[in-house]
Amino acid sequence: MTHQLDTSAKGVYLITVTPFSDSGALDLGSTDRMIDFCLDQGVTGLTVLGIMGEATKLTIEESRTFVRQVLARVQGKVPVVVGASAPGFAAMKELTDSVMDLGASGVMVAPPATVRTDDQIVSYFQMVDETLGARVPWVLQDHPVSTTVQMSPSVILRILKNSPTCVMLKHEDWPGLAKLSTLRAASEKGELRRVSILTGNGGGLFLPEELTRGADGAMTGFAYPEMMVDVVAAHARGDRERAHDLFDAYLPLARYEQQAGVGLAVRKHLFQQRGVIASAFVRKPGPKLSAQDVADIALLVRRQDKRLRELA
Amino acid sequence: MTHQLDTSAKGVYLITVTPFSDSGALDLGSTDRMIDFCLDQGVTGLTVLGIMGEATKLTIEESRTFVRQVLARVQGKVPVVVGASAPGFAAMKELTDSVMDLGASGVMVAPPATVRTDDQIVSYFQMVDETLGARVPWVLQDHPVSTTVQMSPSVILRILKNSPTCVMLKHEDWPGLAKLSTLRAASEKGELRRVSILTGNGGGLFLPEELTRGADGAMTGFAYPEMMVDVVAAHARGDRERAHDLFDAYLPLARYEQQAGVGLAVRKHLFQQRGVIASAFVRKPGPKLSAQDVADIALLVRRQDKRLRELA
Amino acid sequence: MTHQLDTSAKGVYLITVTPFSDSGALDLGSTDRMIDFCLDQGVTGLTVLGIMGEATKLTIEESRTFVRQVLARVQGKVPVVVGASAPGFAAMKELTDSVMDLGASGVMVAPPATVRTDDQIVSYFQMVDETLGARVPWVLQDHPVSTTVQMSPSVILRILKNSPTCVMLKHEDWPGLAKLSTLRAASEKGELRRVSILTGNGGGLFLPEELTRGADGAMTGFAYPEMMVDVVAAHARGDRERAHDLFDAYLPLARYEQQAGVGLAVRKHLFQQRGVIASAFVRKPGPKLSAQDVADIALLVRRQDKRLRELA
Amino acid sequence: MTHQLDTSAKGVYLITVTPFSDSGALDLGSTDRMIDFCLDQGVTGLTVLGIMGEATKLTIEESRTFVRQVLARVQGKVPVVVGASAPGFAAMKELTDSVMDLGASGVMVAPPATVRTDDQIVSYFQMVDETLGARVPWVLQDHPVSTTVQMSPSVILRILKNSPTCVMLKHEDWPGLAKLSTLRAASEKGELRRVSILTGNGGGLFLPEELTRGADGAMTGFAYPEMMVDVVAAHARGDRERAHDLFDAYLPLARYEQQAGVGLAVRKHLFQQRGVIASAFVRKPGPKLSAQDVADIALLVRRQDKRLRELA
Repeated sequence: MTHQLDTSAKGVYLITVTPFSDSGALDLGSTDRMIDFCLDQGVTGLTVLGIMGEATKLTIEESRTFVRQVLARVQGKVPVVVGASAPGFAAMKELTDSVMDLGASGVMVAPPATVRTDDQIVSYFQMVDETLGARVPWVLQDHPVSTTVQMSPSVILRILKNSPTCVMLKHEDWPGLAKLSTLRAASEKGELRRVSILTGNGGGLFLPEELTRGADGAMTGFAYPEMMVDVVAAHARGDRERAHDLFDAYLPLARYEQQAGVGLAVRKHLFQQRGVIASAFVRKPGPKLSAQDVADIALLVRRQDKRLRELA
Repeated sequence: MTHQLDTSAKGVYLITVTPFSDSGALDLGSTDRMIDFCLDQGVTGLTVLGIMGEATKLTIEESRTFVRQVLARVQGKVPVVVGASAPGFAAMKELTDSVMDLGASGVMVAPPATVRTDDQIVSYFQMVDETLGARVPWVLQDHPVSTTVQMSPSVILRILKNSPTCVMLKHEDWPGLAKLSTLRAASEKGELRRVSILTGNGGGLFLPEELTRGADGAMTGFAYPEMMVDVVAAHARGDRERAHDLFDAYLPLARYEQQAGVGLAVRKHLFQQRGVIASAFVRKPGPKLSAQDVADIALLVRRQDKRLRELA
Repeated sequence: MTHQLDTSAKGVYLITVTPFSDSGALDLGSTDRMIDFCLDQGVTGLTVLGIMGEATKLTIEESRTFVRQVLARVQGKVPVVVGASAPGFAAMKELTDSVMDLGASGVMVAPPATVRTDDQIVSYFQMVDETLGARVPWVLQDHPVSTTVQMSPSVILRILKNSPTCVMLKHEDWPGLAKLSTLRAASEKGELRRVSILTGNGGGLFLPEELTRGADGAMTGFAYPEMMVDVVAAHARGDRERAHDLFDAYLPLARYEQQAGVGLAVRKHLFQQRGVIASAFVRKPGPKLSAQDVADIALLVRRQDKRLRELA
Repeated sequence: MTHQLDTSAKGVYLITVTPFSDSGALDLGSTDRMIDFCLDQGVTGLTVLGIMGEATKLTIEESRTFVRQVLARVQGKVPVVVGASAPGFAAMKELTDSVMDLGASGVMVAPPATVRTDDQIVSYFQMVDETLGARVPWVLQDHPVSTTVQMSPSVILRILKNSPTCVMLKHEDWPGLAKLSTLRAASEKGELRRVSILTGNGGGLFLPEELTRGADGAMTGFAYPEMMVDVVAAHARGDRERAHDLFDAYLPLARYEQQAGVGLAVRKHLFQQRGVIASAFVRKPGPKLSAQDVADIALLVRRQDKRLRELA
């Protein structure tokens, strides 16, 4: 049974990688293992075909094959969101219709770098809304680091007013703590419909602070999704110190995995080391790890394991 | 019979628009009329699915349908180049294979905004070369205004050395006169394989000067392709004053059509006024002409007609 | 007697170059000659220390010396505006106070590239307003091509509401015809205080169309200021065809002078050829003309002279 | 006695803030206290008038007053580097001559956003070299996040070859671990003169890994300079685990202080809390801390203190 994404979404929506074999082909066996691993770790949702999912490096047919495999394995246990940002509305509609037919729970859209002023941004998302139609729940992705588009809280308010089917904000503005506080205050004052806000700030590098400011959880990628699941859980039961303790234990490695450029290779390497995927292959253009990188990671993993044992 | 694009290409390769009906559907009848019109005006090649061809606003299927129609109508009379820039190599290969199978003469590729340093640019085009394979002639598009990527002459030299199948440079750096001179001097000194250089500098706004510097012609869009055809012809027969006279007569309107943003709407409006296409429809997001714009254009067309009669 | 700049400003405010000797020193004799030349040609104002005035290449002391010389020579015959954009408000205040004391009529400020959203832009200009104080008339420079800051009409409206001492908009958004129409319509509807709007669109390359849309004149640089003076005059007396005839005669050279990068060298070369300044020296980093550039210019000047004789 | 900066520089060059009073005036008493504090913590050098020193918000006179005060208090105990990046070479020379006369040890220069290609970058720094002259040691600042200029290792090699007075690279490319390894390997192979490399990667957020790759230390700002001093010392004596332990203890707060935008306010707040400066005032435009920010910081400081006690 399929979940339609709605404004009550919370917890951890993991942004998955797309597993390839060592020769670069889609690896559907690893895809299944990765899904099982995520569900076992307690994620409450999955997001596929994002930037870190190498979406632009897939053919249309590969994208569909991958989404189909993911949905078949998830079996409706958690919602699956599909990245649908596209340079044009025809392609956005084509991909959206296709994945919603397959059983996706919603799509995620970021603005193109060409929109700049408040009016241009609002107008763009009106066109997105018209393109997606009245039945597709969607996530507004606010990620200026990759898009160069800066959306002020008042712009987000205008977009949400115009588009009742926008049910979630993926908050990745950086630094975004003040913005998060402003948006939550606006909801409390009734100026803004309350939507789900999941954060991806630097790959979860501000998760404890974001939860305190009213985030409903995280939507980002990390080779240790259990960190985010456990931090969210500790926060939910009011144990803020425990949330920070866990977060701090993973922070040195999370920081390393969030490096621009090489980060995806680090993540896939870690997933491979953990036995989740068979190969750490990244399609070109893409980073490769050096022997020094691998040594850095080994040291950080060892120290992380040690610290987690101390905290157990 | 299909032409393979090669380094001897010259004259005017018109970058076509993609005609739509008033409801936004592909208009294949207007496509045929536009092809006939271009051939009648004396273009020596056609380029389709560029930015001004609204390529990103088409579905994959529409792109194929449009290319198929163009190739069928051209019947091999002139080479047809297809824009194949894509955010990933899988999509680039997919589109390229598809259009080459249909009979295209070559593809054109611009770098993504993410490559910056000389080494990154050279490395990117090595991957392009591997992606396209040994049989697809391709055009290197150098258009910093849209890509933000600046390629120095030494980088272009390195790309051409690495890629024997790169047969043409679409030179749109701006201002590019000095660069054009440098590249031609490098060929003369034997440092650089001589390739075809067609220019698109501001939509042909420097065509006489570029021809003097060694350009083989123009590859750009303009609702009056006969201007470029006639300027190139006058230059070729050594009548430089005539080349300038003609150019100057069209310059006020060409300048108006080259406005950022609204330019495509101006071009389609003019094509419609000339009876070439049935509708001036531009898919969203896209500009619309105001009554004042239409009045401006009418005045400029009237003055252009008058000036051309004086020069006849 | 000094003019305070006010909202009634119109005509042609020429953006001057800063003349240097062949060794790169400030050339005050040429400065005097340039001022006399501009006044003789009928400019109604002058703007100094803009980007094309190589403002950032002067020391503080040189800037003051140059402004002092200009003001002494102008003797209050026309208003003089001084560019005061600065990376910080302390420097902006320092320069503004200094030039206003010397007798400048107002200053011009463009936003830094770091402000992006509507709110950020408005907030920045509130700080500009506080910095300049209640007695300094100022010009809002809207030039996205150099600043990357896009100001929508509603943002300009907010800035004008917040700052009663903002008396002029230097309109250089590109393409800006629709924006110009929107701003003028807002004034007519009473939504916007009517300020002077002088245009610099591509260096005056859309002057006839801008006058038709309600511009009060031009503020830009061109080695033939008489073109702009005559076009504005023809427009003012209702002779639109004459305005276009004159404009078209100068357009091929104006286009050449407006090339990015090399443009300033072209302008100084032309001023030198016309006997206005002694040397075409441009401080580094700056462009140099090649023999081919010089030949291009000679041809364009010859053709311009010929065309002007035909129109006389 | 003044140190001339040379290639043997190592340790921690702290980038200082510029202390203001609550009314925004330069606070020279706090300046003295800050210098004493830094020297007490064991820094081996100081860098003033960087971006985080609010350099662009000072008048020329304030800049000189501040540098004079710093140098007087340092009394030659450690080298003092002054940021000299400027939009033009006249201003760069003016500031450099002025601070070298006052006793600075060298200057630091970052490229302007307008240089893009390898050749443009190399050419720019040749002009810097000519501007600074043969007697001023200088630091090449490689910080693409703020400059948007990407310098490949081969470009840095060319700059160092051209400029014997460039004695240090401030390495802030991000992610820069691979680049650091490449540069050190080039020195070992003799392709590159060995210069000092101090890192500022995300404000020291990769310090342990950078030291392992051959960095000579750090040049960055952080309200707890003792962290960097202690990490460098532990690394120098071969105690890598201790280096990581200390680093990890400070990482949660360092991460918080390195937030874009609000970071400087966090740093000044912490310096004020520690009794180093009297006021956390940041000149406009600049961030302000909310009550929630202050609460976040208090929690992080408390946890940091606790963790440091555990490690003592």
